[in-house]
Amino acid sequence: MEHFADRLSAAVRRCGNPVLVGLDPRWEQLPAPLLRGHDVAGTTERAAVYAEFCRGVIDVVASLVPAVKPQAAFFEELGPAGMAALADIVQYARQRGLLVILDGKRNDIGSTATAYAAAYLGNELQGWQSDALTVSPYLGDDSLTPFVETAQSCGGGLFVLVKTSNPGGRTFQDLVCDGRPLYEHVAAHVEKLAKQTSGACGYGLVGAVVGATYPQQLEQLRTLMPSTWFLVPGYGAQGGAAADVAGAFDSRGLGAIVNNSRGIIFAHARPEYSQQFGAARWQDAVAAATQDMIGALKAAIPAIS
Amino acid sequence: MEHFADRLSAAVRRCGNPVLVGLDPRWEQLPAPLLRGHDVAGTTERAAVYAEFCRGVIDVVASLVPAVKPQAAFFEELGPAGMAALADIVQYARQRGLLVILDGKRNDIGSTATAYAAAYLGNELQGWQSDALTVSPYLGDDSLTPFVETAQSCGGGLFVLVKTSNPGGRTFQDLVCDGRPLYEHVAAHVEKLAKQTSGACGYGLVGAVVGATYPQQLEQLRTLMPSTWFLVPGYGAQGGAAADVAGAFDSRGLGAIVNNSRGIIFAHARPEYSQQFGAARWQDAVAAATQDMIGALKAAIPAIS
Repeated sequence: MEHFADRLSAAVRRCGNPVLVGLDPRWEQLPAPLLRGHDVAGTTERAAVYAEFCRGVIDVVASLVPAVKPQAAFFEELGPAGMAALADIVQYARQRGLLVILDGKRNDIGSTATAYAAAYLGNELQGWQSDALTVSPYLGDDSLTPFVETAQSCGGGLFVLVKTSNPGGRTFQDLVCDGRPLYEHVAAHVEKLAKQTSGACGYGLVGAVVGATYPQQLEQLRTLMPSTWFLVPGYGAQGGAAADVAGAFDSRGLGAIVNNSRGIIFAHARPEYSQQFGAARWQDAVAAATQDMIGALKAAIPAIS
Repeated sequence: MEHFADRLSAAVRRCGNPVLVGLDPRWEQLPAPLLRGHDVAGTTERAAVYAEFCRGVIDVVASLVPAVKPQAAFFEELGPAGMAALADIVQYARQRGLLVILDGKRNDIGSTATAYAAAYLGNELQGWQSDALTVSPYLGDDSLTPFVETAQSCGGGLFVLVKTSNPGGRTFQDLVCDGRPLYEHVAAHVEKLAKQTSGACGYGLVGAVVGATYPQQLEQLRTLMPSTWFLVPGYGAQGGAAADVAGAFDSRGLGAIVNNSRGIIFAHARPEYSQQFGAARWQDAVAAATQDMIGALKAAIPAIS
């Protein structure tokens, strides 16, 4: 399998945009037509509706964007049936040519970390084989090593939490240690791993999660982490705008993908789209919101080359 | 449902020991008799063997110890079938009267964190309803709030990573910020949450993971965190001994549970037990190793009262 960052670069170039569509199914927000006949839904029925909904989103965005990011938590909430639905949509998205970044924020040590990596990146067993996985750094350098080794062996990628988009991200990440905030220490370690594993495009298979809600830090981290691809959450519903994420990109328009979950998948309920499309045409609303985000980003970031 | 820390205190008192048995099934280390006829095993077959093995461990330890800790990663490695096996053994352990601490090290923000909490602590849907869940702190205070709220509503508990047992735990956790290491900042926040949620026993529903491999810090954290129950990994295979964990306990012999995974569940392969029991009598080896650990701890910690 080709190097993850090279596959990601190629996908961004092919689509001409760096939009990452987050697949965060929430029962209460699903378009009404999908819920017909499911008023009192058990987990198996809910999981089937989640799969149907996500497949419907994938059908719309597969020709528009390079990648999708399923959020594991919403599937785990439905128990084993939810996890089977997650496996289904990961496979479906990859079959449709999308890169899949599994948002699981997993982390552990030694052989336990290896087991997580095998579950979400490896190809041997029948798990949720994705192109990349988000991981948490608190457990330290030796907790990341097994993930990196597995990713190397199967052409996978990682995105390590560095500076998250939530207000509370500051609690620990902004504590100043030896003259610089914790997130810069994590950033330095991630950049080292990225440099050690860089592909033809100049980026490593280890990337970083850096929130759109901290544009100044985003720009500063871009400078500090020249080998690290960024996954940028916080666009849209969390308040980040196209101008806020511009600093995440290099001069080729590469080096970052910008996630939008609710703003795209539940676009039918947004004021901008509800009147024109409504719940009945929710897939058209997904398409319109995706196109609008592509347009907004293209106007704000360097041309992709 | 009664307060988690009170249930944990009662269970430790009833059993007269603070041993936590880690359920970390690893295919290569399973006792040979369990593998008969499973030479070329797919994930469904492996998951069934994992469930059989863990049920066998539970049958032995249910009358001896207060709690078990299934490690999610090893079940996730087997995909949806593994997650179904995990649900099975969580339920089985609770039916046998054991408290179940799910080791998933989950974390996320907002409604995503709520979904994780519902999956592993909540009672509404059919997930892996456990008595407690391990969580990671990197995402900050607002990422912990949804877990605390769910735990409060259902009598559940949390163990937040503070000072982990692995050598690489030092990478970020020991960075000094404002005159004290990062793990002390996390510890202070966890203690605040524990104090806010304390039960009749004096401990809160929010606990901390503090490794046996750093005995000095363990003792110091016990002083800094009087309301916080400790989950202590690193005993046995990782090098921690009974004397190393003594500082984790209060004068009543409460306030900590000490985990041992491989040293108990794979005791049949340890030099101390292999000759007497071997793979054929692996459950007797589990019993002997559990009894030996109970004895070693009782000799090192304050009498439980």
